[in-house]
Amino acid sequence: MQSTMQDVPLTVTRILEHGSVVHGQSRITTWTGDGAPLRRTFAETGTRAARLAHGLRGLGVGPGDAVGTLMWNNSAHVEAYFAIPAMGAVLHTLNLRLAPEQLAWIVRHAADRVVIVGGSLLPLLAPLLPHLDSVGHVIVSGAGDRSVLDGCRAQVHDYEELLAAQPDRRYEWPELDERAAAALCYTSGTTGDPKGVVYSHRSVYLHSMEVNSASSFGLKAGETCLPVVPMFHVNAWGLPHAAFMSGASLLLPDRFLQPAPLAEMIESERPSMAAGVPTIWQGLLAELDARPRDTSSLKAVVSGGAPCPPSLMKAFEERHGLRIVQAWGMTETSPLGSMAYPPPGLTPEEEWPYRVTQGRVPASVEARLAGPDGTFLPWDGRSAGELEVRGPWIAGAYHGGADGEPFRPDDKFSPDGWLRTGDVGTITPDGYLTLTDRAKDVIKSGGEWISSVELENHLMAHPGVAEAAVVAVPDEKWGERPLAAVVLRDGAAVEYEVLRSFLADRVARWQLPERWVRVPAVPKTSVGKFDKKALRRQYAEGELEVVVLPRVP
Amino acid sequence: MQSTMQDVPLTVTRILEHGSVVHGQSRITTWTGDGAPLRRTFAETGTRAARLAHGLRGLGVGPGDAVGTLMWNNSAHVEAYFAIPAMGAVLHTLNLRLAPEQLAWIVRHAADRVVIVGGSLLPLLAPLLPHLDSVGHVIVSGAGDRSVLDGCRAQVHDYEELLAAQPDRRYEWPELDERAAAALCYTSGTTGDPKGVVYSHRSVYLHSMEVNSASSFGLKAGETCLPVVPMFHVNAWGLPHAAFMSGASLLLPDRFLQPAPLAEMIESERPSMAAGVPTIWQGLLAELDARPRDTSSLKAVVSGGAPCPPSLMKAFEERHGLRIVQAWGMTETSPLGSMAYPPPGLTPEEEWPYRVTQGRVPASVEARLAGPDGTFLPWDGRSAGELEVRGPWIAGAYHGGADGEPFRPDDKFSPDGWLRTGDVGTITPDGYLTLTDRAKDVIKSGGEWISSVELENHLMAHPGVAEAAVVAVPDEKWGERPLAAVVLRDGAAVEYEVLRSFLADRVARWQLPERWVRVPAVPKTSVGKFDKKALRRQYAEGELEVVVLPRVP
Repeated sequence: MQSTMQDVPLTVTRILEHGSVVHGQSRITTWTGDGAPLRRTFAETGTRAARLAHGLRGLGVGPGDAVGTLMWNNSAHVEAYFAIPAMGAVLHTLNLRLAPEQLAWIVRHAADRVVIVGGSLLPLLAPLLPHLDSVGHVIVSGAGDRSVLDGCRAQVHDYEELLAAQPDRRYEWPELDERAAAALCYTSGTTGDPKGVVYSHRSVYLHSMEVNSASSFGLKAGETCLPVVPMFHVNAWGLPHAAFMSGASLLLPDRFLQPAPLAEMIESERPSMAAGVPTIWQGLLAELDARPRDTSSLKAVVSGGAPCPPSLMKAFEERHGLRIVQAWGMTETSPLGSMAYPPPGLTPEEEWPYRVTQGRVPASVEARLAGPDGTFLPWDGRSAGELEVRGPWIAGAYHGGADGEPFRPDDKFSPDGWLRTGDVGTITPDGYLTLTDRAKDVIKSGGEWISSVELENHLMAHPGVAEAAVVAVPDEKWGERPLAAVVLRDGAAVEYEVLRSFLADRVARWQLPERWVRVPAVPKTSVGKFDKKALRRQYAEGELEVVVLPRVP
Repeated sequence: MQSTMQDVPLTVTRILEHGSVVHGQSRITTWTGDGAPLRRTFAETGTRAARLAHGLRGLGVGPGDAVGTLMWNNSAHVEAYFAIPAMGAVLHTLNLRLAPEQLAWIVRHAADRVVIVGGSLLPLLAPLLPHLDSVGHVIVSGAGDRSVLDGCRAQVHDYEELLAAQPDRRYEWPELDERAAAALCYTSGTTGDPKGVVYSHRSVYLHSMEVNSASSFGLKAGETCLPVVPMFHVNAWGLPHAAFMSGASLLLPDRFLQPAPLAEMIESERPSMAAGVPTIWQGLLAELDARPRDTSSLKAVVSGGAPCPPSLMKAFEERHGLRIVQAWGMTETSPLGSMAYPPPGLTPEEEWPYRVTQGRVPASVEARLAGPDGTFLPWDGRSAGELEVRGPWIAGAYHGGADGEPFRPDDKFSPDGWLRTGDVGTITPDGYLTLTDRAKDVIKSGGEWISSVELENHLMAHPGVAEAAVVAVPDEKWGERPLAAVVLRDGAAVEYEVLRSFLADRVARWQLPERWVRVPAVPKTSVGKFDKKALRRQYAEGELEVVVLPRVP
């Protein structure tokens, strides 16, 4: 028997058209820092996206060509988000926090034909341009000193002038295969070259549907979503697409990601939900503690990208009534992999053990735990293994191997095609995933595994500790032992012995670190995660003043 | 550039596995009428679905074979919902309210190999069996007099015995193409032979995602959904699939669809949402008026299948605090086509004009209005045309034409493949769809269109009127004129002149009916809709005692 359903592809084009027609009055509000936010409707954004597509086509952008964006979160970036995939090209979001040489490597690897750059980011792009042979055109959006581009080989265009020069308010968007490439994002892994993940129209569409499900972010018309997560991080977690699909308005912070302007825009624009990494919420908490604002519009604050310290979640909730919901994902998972909503009917106290997990996977994400010997482990809440995932918005390869074809390194993909996440954790019988460590960050001590993240979370719960990172360092007797690097709060004076006693009440004695060091700040990666590789290197090169306490008998 | 995403099909199998593993503790509660509902977890349902698949395979069911279900809403039916598509066969839900000859026609047309039948429905099936050559096996679920099957050619099995005989708690579900047939449902249109719509795994999956979106039904774990809509109507609007996808529990009424048991199960099982046709809510309203119950658990009551009279919505809300949300769809649209949530920030009074519409389409449903001359009309809230829709869960053909292949009648599908819904209406600039009539029910009076539904809704808002149907009848001078058939409330004595004056305050004078008739009940189709064809026939054959008032000058 044959299905009699229509064969309609799932495309970014459909999301754009739906948002700009059915939800044409929904809005993108971009913070400008000058008290007059830039406001555009979805209908206007649709028209501007059509003009951008005409402009890009005029510059020679064709199907499958990559167009880079080096931009903050603003409405022009949303226009690029839709126009580029909808015209059949590939949106390549460039992470402006990468080291310049990494950025250049990525642009060359993706062979970006055009780069759209925010004016304030010209000083970052200009010195790289001589090394970017594929880039024939640079389009500058917003204010900035354009003289830094003088003499560059690429043709320079003004974004607004380019759009204004296109007479046609509509674009004949091509019919696309849903498996065609839509967007490209490179992982900012701390090892090896960056790896490109190419999202398809299908994956973006399905992911947007999931973001809008009531079990996930649940965006809907009439609400306003604040993606603090940069639009160069995994499509801003899919929120711009999900907003156009649902009709939810967007509040975009542009480059004003500091705690004070964030608090200000929340108070004045009243978003219903916000999404970002824990370090953003850590900063906002301190800001709100110092200068309370009305943040009552926020029904949920989603935290992802790194585990959110429970102490931060509790402080946010107790002091400001803001509920942080933890989510897990990665560049390779589009990123929505799981969200931590507790089961219903529990008291707030009973909810905590669920809320501090990574949560449960949606139906489109299959999960399994691979043990050290490659067998799959039971979901018993105890057996710890590497999380592997499968699904229509999960990467099955990386872009551009030696022969230009997608490649599948063995350490990243299982023989049957599942993504090896590199995260180690457990899953309970009712599906709650707890990730304790990156596989490479687990401390292998005398045949046992010590979770670095567990130690960090306990340390950060101590009132005198602002941040703490724990890494494995070589140990003659045990193979590896934990090194605890702590950042004390201003004015706090806490002895290492006190912190160790604090830990001793919370973890097994053999897990207690002997090696301790105070650091002014934990080194961070370009995306704000603890850079444990850097910490290990600092240790190896003798740069840290480590104190070794006697091992607890 | 090539996408690097995994190629994972969207299947009913994935929904089943997700629900029975990640949400294994969610429950299906089936009302039994004896005070002890049957409760099964999703995990148990998964095991039983595997056993059912083994059993069906043992009876010779293979890929693409149709398996009929003639069952009420209960947990065994949910098992069939999942086992049959997941094993690669096709679930064919049989509408037990059809006339026996129509039912037989459908079973033969679908070539059902096996029929699973509820014990209480044996008297309906047994007389048909001699005419159902394709049916080799009948599986009886639940209590009922099985002697009516004595001597029938098909082999008879007991559902529970069949499951118990399968030792294996797991089934190696095959890898399926997402475009493979999953389920089959025939339209119960009042003209011509029933037409089969074959849903694909892909369409069911995408539709379930949409049902779970916060903009639609928004099911989630911890909530309980009560599908009063029968499971033989368009997959119970996709709610069983959506429940397994989200983890929401199900409360199923079995055959207890009468107002009193419905009120009782709502009070005792406390569902968070319910879904059904307006006649169900009409009955429940009368029941609650007579015997109030605690229905406070219901956050939303979704009404679809026919326009919900605004008077009913208001009465429900004012007297019982229950908010009815109107949805539109049809067998050919899986069925979710649109839902009527008002824009945010309005007062309750301002919300009404939006809530009485059919609402807005989701991103996966494209809509357009075709005018009488085939041109497409603007979304201006005034231009009325036939609604045409396109999308991945919209039918593009019907099952089994003369040559056995899918067929596409011109009156049902446009040349470019869109579904012609047969519904006439308008769309506002902000996407709100208002359907006024079936194309065939519009009254064409002197070159103008009169909406029968508008007249009906006004009449039913009169306190003396229980039901009202308006149909076109031939008129020498005007071509067609409206005939108003009214059912008065018990004890009410209202003159036709009074009703006409009531209408005269609400519609244009030239639209006022001259022809009036009192009927004991409006004839209904097998799915509870007004059967206007029957009414027109009764008029044509002189069976109605029509009073003709003088035409208003």
